[in-house]
Amino acid sequence: MSRKSPITNLLFLLLIFLFAFSAAAKSRSHGPRRPCRHLVFYFHDIIYNGENAENATAAIVGAPAWGNTTILAGQNHFGDMVVFDDPITMDNNLHSPAVGRAQGFYIYDRKEIFTAWLGFSFVFNSTEHRGSLNFAGADPLMNKTRDVSVIGGTGDFFMARGIATLSTDSFEGEVYFRLRADIKLYECW
Amino acid sequence: MSRKSPITNLLFLLLIFLFAFSAAAKSRSHGPRRPCRHLVFYFHDIIYNGENAENATAAIVGAPAWGNTTILAGQNHFGDMVVFDDPITMDNNLHSPAVGRAQGFYIYDRKEIFTAWLGFSFVFNSTEHRGSLNFAGADPLMNKTRDVSVIGGTGDFFMARGIATLSTDSFEGEVYFRLRADIKLYECW
Amino acid sequence: MSRKSPITNLLFLLLIFLFAFSAAAKSRSHGPRRPCRHLVFYFHDIIYNGENAENATAAIVGAPAWGNTTILAGQNHFGDMVVFDDPITMDNNLHSPAVGRAQGFYIYDRKEIFTAWLGFSFVFNSTEHRGSLNFAGADPLMNKTRDVSVIGGTGDFFMARGIATLSTDSFEGEVYFRLRADIKLYECW
Repeated sequence: MSRKSPITNLLFLLLIFLFAFSAAAKSRSHGPRRPCRHLVFYFHDIIYNGENAENATAAIVGAPAWGNTTILAGQNHFGDMVVFDDPITMDNNLHSPAVGRAQGFYIYDRKEIFTAWLGFSFVFNSTEHRGSLNFAGADPLMNKTRDVSVIGGTGDFFMARGIATLSTDSFEGEVYFRLRADIKLYECW
Repeated sequence: MSRKSPITNLLFLLLIFLFAFSAAAKSRSHGPRRPCRHLVFYFHDIIYNGENAENATAAIVGAPAWGNTTILAGQNHFGDMVVFDDPITMDNNLHSPAVGRAQGFYIYDRKEIFTAWLGFSFVFNSTEHRGSLNFAGADPLMNKTRDVSVIGGTGDFFMARGIATLSTDSFEGEVYFRLRADIKLYECW
Repeated sequence: MSRKSPITNLLFLLLIFLFAFSAAAKSRSHGPRRPCRHLVFYFHDIIYNGENAENATAAIVGAPAWGNTTILAGQNHFGDMVVFDDPITMDNNLHSPAVGRAQGFYIYDRKEIFTAWLGFSFVFNSTEHRGSLNFAGADPLMNKTRDVSVIGGTGDFFMARGIATLSTDSFEGEVYFRLRADIKLYECW
């Protein structure tokens, strides 16, 4: 009796542990929010305004009935859709070597204030990173920081998920915007 | 011999359990589909039609060669792209207090029947919810219900994934649409 | 003493194992990349060019200031946004029975070379597959193969995630494109 008891206890303990793990696996609730990867980049958006065709990295391609594709519309640009292909740099200097391209679109989507909806990718093809990160989400761009979702990745970022915290690092009028992207991945493969 | 045997058995059992868990972790197959969070909202889309500038929450910003940005095009609006910033309410009353904004776009994408592709976010900034849910997917809008993906979330909805079942709760002509979103999250952090 | 020792050892071993699992669960690092599902499809894109209204499955709906919605713009079509509703077939024959529709949009997003950003769904409603797969990502379409993310799924593809490798199987001028989609899902429910 006394010989069996510790084993029985251990078995009991083991079953409790396994049950706990099994439950966790099914509900997909997660522990502390520790990123498995952390990256910071800058990207640089120069919007075409009818006069800067050579430097522009972005252009209006959709506009509401009261707007056009040369100049951003009134009412906080509501309805303007912009396509971009922006250089990504490691620091906040537009002229630093590009480590990739930020490619996709944003749509100004509110009349009362500047907000946008973003769908874009970071496409890397450098010695350091190869592959892409895909993003989507709301960008209330008057906020100091705003979070969008990392919805997937390829290559070095295979199956990644996480959060990108965007902030406007600098801007000049309505032509140049420099954005800082603080990317925290919480799912890494 | 008889003393060692139970421990050996237990060890053997343990290894089988651990192996099973290890296999499960690698293939990411999942157990029963129990949502870890369930939310229901309504949102209200009023499309600009040239006469309702004050009330409109949405506007056509892209159209095919045979269309324009004031009136929805023929052929089931194929090619019309609409940007929206719709109030979200807890019940089906347009005049209830908004708990957030549904912001993004849809594109009518079929000539033979009404279907659309949706990319949008629910942006919450109330006492109850803070943060955003991001959605993408096909919306065959003549179906009673249709499922789109919750592709990510931020704030209170950090890293969320799930399914949103949309249904057209009411509509008036081609101007007002009230959608019910039944959101089931299956990944919660 | 000698009787207790093996149990103590076993308990110690058990704790190490459980600790290892616990750590793995929190960081969401994953083992070998074995797909839980593998699918191959073809889809067929016929872009409206002003003369093929009957056959066209896609149309330009957004264009930059220097372009229009009838003919793809210069500078590698930068800024052209195309909406599509393409038949999906099991083999590379446009006239094979369609098993679903590829619905969504792409935007040409670079001046120097052909690249695009894709947001679309595969919508299935056949005896074999019911439900949808949602995709997003960068498509550097001059590359032999390029990877986009499977960001979610519904129905038979409930909560799916993975990678779709696209390749241009054939094309005719700037009107017909046949794409091969090699879909590997790494998260299946």
